Amino acid sequence: MTSQSVLQGLAQPADTRLVLLVLDGLGGLAQQPNGLTELEAARTPNMDLLAAEGQTGLSQAIGPGITPGSGPGHLALFGYDPVSSNIGRGALSALGLGVELNDGDVAVRLNFCTVDDKGRVVDRRAGRIDSSLNSSLISKLNAIDLPGIELQFITESQHRAVLVMRGSGLDPRITETDPQRLDVFPVDPEPIHPEAQRTSDVLKGVLAAVRECIGGESPANFVLMRGYAGRPVFQGIDQLYGLNPLCIATYPMYKGLARAVGMDVAEGLDTISAEVAELSAQWNSYDYFFLHVKSPDARGEDGDFDGKVAAIEEVDAKVPDILQLRPDVFVLTGDHSTPAVLRQHSWHPSPFLIRGEWVRPDRTEAFGERDCDTGALGVFPAQSIMAMMLGHGGRLAKFGA
Amino acid sequence: MTSQSVLQGLAQPADTRLVLLVLDGLGGLAQQPNGLTELEAARTPNMDLLAAEGQTGLSQAIGPGITPGSGPGHLALFGYDPVSSNIGRGALSALGLGVELNDGDVAVRLNFCTVDDKGRVVDRRAGRIDSSLNSSLISKLNAIDLPGIELQFITESQHRAVLVMRGSGLDPRITETDPQRLDVFPVDPEPIHPEAQRTSDVLKGVLAAVRECIGGESPANFVLMRGYAGRPVFQGIDQLYGLNPLCIATYPMYKGLARAVGMDVAEGLDTISAEVAELSAQWNSYDYFFLHVKSPDARGEDGDFDGKVAAIEEVDAKVPDILQLRPDVFVLTGDHSTPAVLRQHSWHPSPFLIRGEWVRPDRTEAFGERDCDTGALGVFPAQSIMAMMLGHGGRLAKFGA
Repeated sequence: MTSQSVLQGLAQPADTRLVLLVLDGLGGLAQQPNGLTELEAARTPNMDLLAAEGQTGLSQAIGPGITPGSGPGHLALFGYDPVSSNIGRGALSALGLGVELNDGDVAVRLNFCTVDDKGRVVDRRAGRIDSSLNSSLISKLNAIDLPGIELQFITESQHRAVLVMRGSGLDPRITETDPQRLDVFPVDPEPIHPEAQRTSDVLKGVLAAVRECIGGESPANFVLMRGYAGRPVFQGIDQLYGLNPLCIATYPMYKGLARAVGMDVAEGLDTISAEVAELSAQWNSYDYFFLHVKSPDARGEDGDFDGKVAAIEEVDAKVPDILQLRPDVFVLTGDHSTPAVLRQHSWHPSPFLIRGEWVRPDRTEAFGERDCDTGALGVFPAQSIMAMMLGHGGRLAKFGA
Repeated sequence: MTSQSVLQGLAQPADTRLVLLVLDGLGGLAQQPNGLTELEAARTPNMDLLAAEGQTGLSQAIGPGITPGSGPGHLALFGYDPVSSNIGRGALSALGLGVELNDGDVAVRLNFCTVDDKGRVVDRRAGRIDSSLNSSLISKLNAIDLPGIELQFITESQHRAVLVMRGSGLDPRITETDPQRLDVFPVDPEPIHPEAQRTSDVLKGVLAAVRECIGGESPANFVLMRGYAGRPVFQGIDQLYGLNPLCIATYPMYKGLARAVGMDVAEGLDTISAEVAELSAQWNSYDYFFLHVKSPDARGEDGDFDGKVAAIEEVDAKVPDILQLRPDVFVLTGDHSTPAVLRQHSWHPSPFLIRGEWVRPDRTEAFGERDCDTGALGVFPAQSIMAMMLGHGGRLAKFGA
């Protein structure tokens, strides 16, 4: 894998436009032996033509057998090492909820839990309470007022919530309070690093206030804290490669990830049509476009094979609108697979195609998992997609003389 | 390559059974241009069906062009970095001879050699003496008795033997005594590290005793010492991934390797039928089975092309007995190639297939080198087979959120 610093050293300007179209959860599995996957079953004449004109393969975010979360899955697509660049869970949760983190903020994942009258944990998830109960508890917690620190509690779902702290001198290097077992006291939030002493003191104050605020509730009468994380600090793809990048997505998490890697973010979009219209409207203002489509993953997680087929076909119908903008490099892939038969992210690599004037076509004639199996690129690390796009876009100088 | 520590962090329990069937030396070469390899020539309807139902490729233990020894070849199959995890030759020889090493033991490879009347080496291999002469010399050496140290000399073959030392304070960091050229004195076994002083003293005593014991023999009248090694210390696959692994093999070296990586080892097996019967008998007691078949490698080293074809066909006939146990993940590959035309291990990658309920089938319809060339996995590092097996077996959690 070529390192980002080598790529950065080779980056050069060019008047070319690059489009990364991510169909979230694109890859799939057949419903029965000898059957077709969702993508193979979908009628995708436009994607098939792109596969025939371009080059195919299968992109893999982390490694064989490993199921990527959305964070690392996308970081790989943007050219980052998804293992070393993994974003702290608190920060990712905050991004996923659309909460923007500033430098110096610390985000914390909370689990509502049940403690007994002595304060020992008897249910680490408070019986997986309803999201509506979660919301009403969060309303109460948001009344907590501590001097010198701004607190924002946000419902995630069921027993899960997020706390974002804003104030001076915060540091996420703190022990997690979840004891990971029952009938013991929560761990105190102690500093792992001397610079986190103030944060430890603040968190102890927060926990005392939480106990006072919801200690009489049932079943959720306390919280456990995990995944402390500051704002993810990456050198953005704008700085690394001189790109002027725009994210076009409908879901908060993907916008948050894009912001974290230096992209501008289009707002207020909620359909694929709106996303493609935005791409067209912004075509002359940017040179790298991350276009994210959520529906294949959502239908996969629903276990809705036909719905995922339809979601893919809906995107296929929009491909001509993208192509008429004449992108110099066009990539279509997924961040991970979400087979409807598994109803969740999976470890299978993602069908990939790249098409551009200088892409050397392989013999693949259609876009599907088994077509991509025999494509020129084989199974390859998603992290190298950025270099491919830059290279085919004339944006990398020669290495060495 | 995903690191073992990342995989370890993702490992989760699952009620699934994984089978790794290794046909030692599986890969081969044709006997003439346009001919078939041993595997291509073999009639293997069961393996062909598995290839059709599963995914294929070619596994490579070390890297392009590099011929793996049995130790690194298998360590890669078990998910270890075969370069950094290479076992000291003395320890590997001891394992290969079925000598179990304890913590603190030091194993040493010996070469019988010829020295002149002044003690200068005139033949580093004593004319490659017969194994039977080796055995009679070893009997004499085993009469050596030194205070405070237990010595065990073991014949390997021809001029090669192994010495295992057991006692307190032993340390393998000692200079090798083989001068690697003729007409010079052997090097003294001096400590490379201060903690090896006692071992150096012991080895000097051993060498004096050896000279006294066989100094009057011909042509083998002394020994050279190389490859000092303690018991290999690996974190086992049981600890790393929560597996309960069993090795089913007929040859001591493979059992020793398996023991070194935390497997239980079935004993007393000497045919493929007995091995498969053991697999069946132990099916409910373990969840990871390493099933090793030696014969393709042995026939390859004999230069017996037809014998190797027959050995492969013999295994093919046993495949249904394995499949009727309904393994969740089944892998068939080799640790390295042993083409009969070369009569030795070779650097060619090994045909590979994986089959399981969640394996996404490729278009390969048969199991042979050229079939696997177009398989979904391409040429890939054998070290990633463990991650694939764990992933397809539902034994790895999602990476990141």
